[in-house]
Amino acid sequence: MRHWMLVVILLAGLVSVGAHVPKSSAAPDIASALPQGDGPQYASDGALVRPKNFETWVFVGASTGLSYEQDMKMKGPGEFHNVYIRPEAYQVYKQTGKFPEKTMFALALYSPDEKVSPSHAGYFEGDFDSLAVAVKDHDHFPEGWAYFNFGSAHDLSARAMPVSKSNCYSCHSKNGADDNVFVQFYPILRPIMKAHKSASSADSAR
Amino acid sequence: MRHWMLVVILLAGLVSVGAHVPKSSAAPDIASALPQGDGPQYASDGALVRPKNFETWVFVGASTGLSYEQDMKMKGPGEFHNVYIRPEAYQVYKQTGKFPEKTMFALALYSPDEKVSPSHAGYFEGDFDSLAVAVKDHDHFPEGWAYFNFGSAHDLSARAMPVSKSNCYSCHSKNGADDNVFVQFYPILRPIMKAHKSASSADSAR
Repeated sequence: MRHWMLVVILLAGLVSVGAHVPKSSAAPDIASALPQGDGPQYASDGALVRPKNFETWVFVGASTGLSYEQDMKMKGPGEFHNVYIRPEAYQVYKQTGKFPEKTMFALALYSPDEKVSPSHAGYFEGDFDSLAVAVKDHDHFPEGWAYFNFGSAHDLSARAMPVSKSNCYSCHSKNGADDNVFVQFYPILRPIMKAHKSASSADSAR
Repeated sequence: MRHWMLVVILLAGLVSVGAHVPKSSAAPDIASALPQGDGPQYASDGALVRPKNFETWVFVGASTGLSYEQDMKMKGPGEFHNVYIRPEAYQVYKQTGKFPEKTMFALALYSPDEKVSPSHAGYFEGDFDSLAVAVKDHDHFPEGWAYFNFGSAHDLSARAMPVSKSNCYSCHSKNGADDNVFVQFYPILRPIMKAHKSASSADSAR
C-alpha cells in the first residue's frame, strides 16, 4: 500500500476530469497523431479504460527501489518498475524525436523475489503488484498529459479517472527530460532523444 | 568483464557448431514452427547473425544482481538483465504453452545507475553493457537450443558461434522451468505456463 502511494506521487494528473476540451493551439500537428484504433479509450464519464496487453508494448526500461522518502524500508532492492510504451508511439518517437498524440505509457510494478538455484544472488520480478498509465492527448486534457492509477493487481480497476495534477503532472513536467517523460531513466529511449537533439542542434548551428 | 563471464556461465551452447542436422524426431510439429522471415539468420559457417531491434520484442522480465559466485562484489544492486522474446514466439507460447521452432530470446545487460532527482533512492538502467541470445532450432542444433554471446556493447559482434554446451545448455536444461527457459523468473510467461499446465493436468484427470 505504501509502495502504491509512492507511485501515485510519481504520477501526475489533471484537476479537470473528463472534460472534452477542443484541441489546443499548443497541440502537435495532427499528422503526428497515432491512429485511434488501439489508442486511449474513454468511457462516457471521461474515465480511461484500462489498456489490454500492455505487456506486449515496447519495453523502455526497468528501475528498482524508487522512493521519494528518505531511508524508506523496503524488501530487498525494492519493487521493480517496468515501463512500456505503445509500439506505434515508439516508432513515431524513433523517427521524429516527438511523442505523438495518443502516446500511452504503462507502469507495471512487480514485487522482488530472491533468486534461488541456479543463482547464488540477485532478485527477479515476482508477483505483479499494480498498474498506472500515462496518456498524451490534447483532445481530452488541456495540459496534454494525464495520469491514471488502476490500483492493485488483486483488484485492478477496469477504468480510472485522471489523478490530480499536483500528484504527478507537476513532477513529470518539471523533471521529465523530454515532454513530461522520464526519458533520462529509459535506456531504449535515451539514444533516440540524444540523436534527435544532436540533429536539431546541428540544424540550428547552420 | 567479470560480469560478462557470469553471463557466459548463464547461457549454454552446443559442442557441435554450425552443423546442419536434419530435423530430429524429437522436434515439435512443423505446424508450430514460426515463419522464417525474421527468425534466426545464419551465416554460411553456422554463426548466428545478431538479431536487429530486439528491444521491440516482447519483454518477459528483468532481474538484478544475478551471480553464480558467493559474496561477489557488485555495484549497487548489480547489473540489470532484460530478457526479450520474439513476438511471434510469444503469441505461439500464449496459445499453446509450447515454445515453437525458431523461438529466440535476447538477454541485454545494463549497468545500474543511481536514481537522482526527483527520487531519493533506487536504481535505473544505465549504459547498455552486453548482449546474448538463445535460439530454439532443431534444424540447426540436435539438442534444440543453442546460446550465443555477442560480447560487450562497445564492441558488439555482428555474428556469433554457439557457446559450448557445458557453459549454458546444461544449466538451462536442468533448471529452466519449461523447455530450457527460466520461465520461473519471467512474470509475463509464468501465468501462461501455469494456465497450460493446469489445463493439461485437468485433461489427463478426465
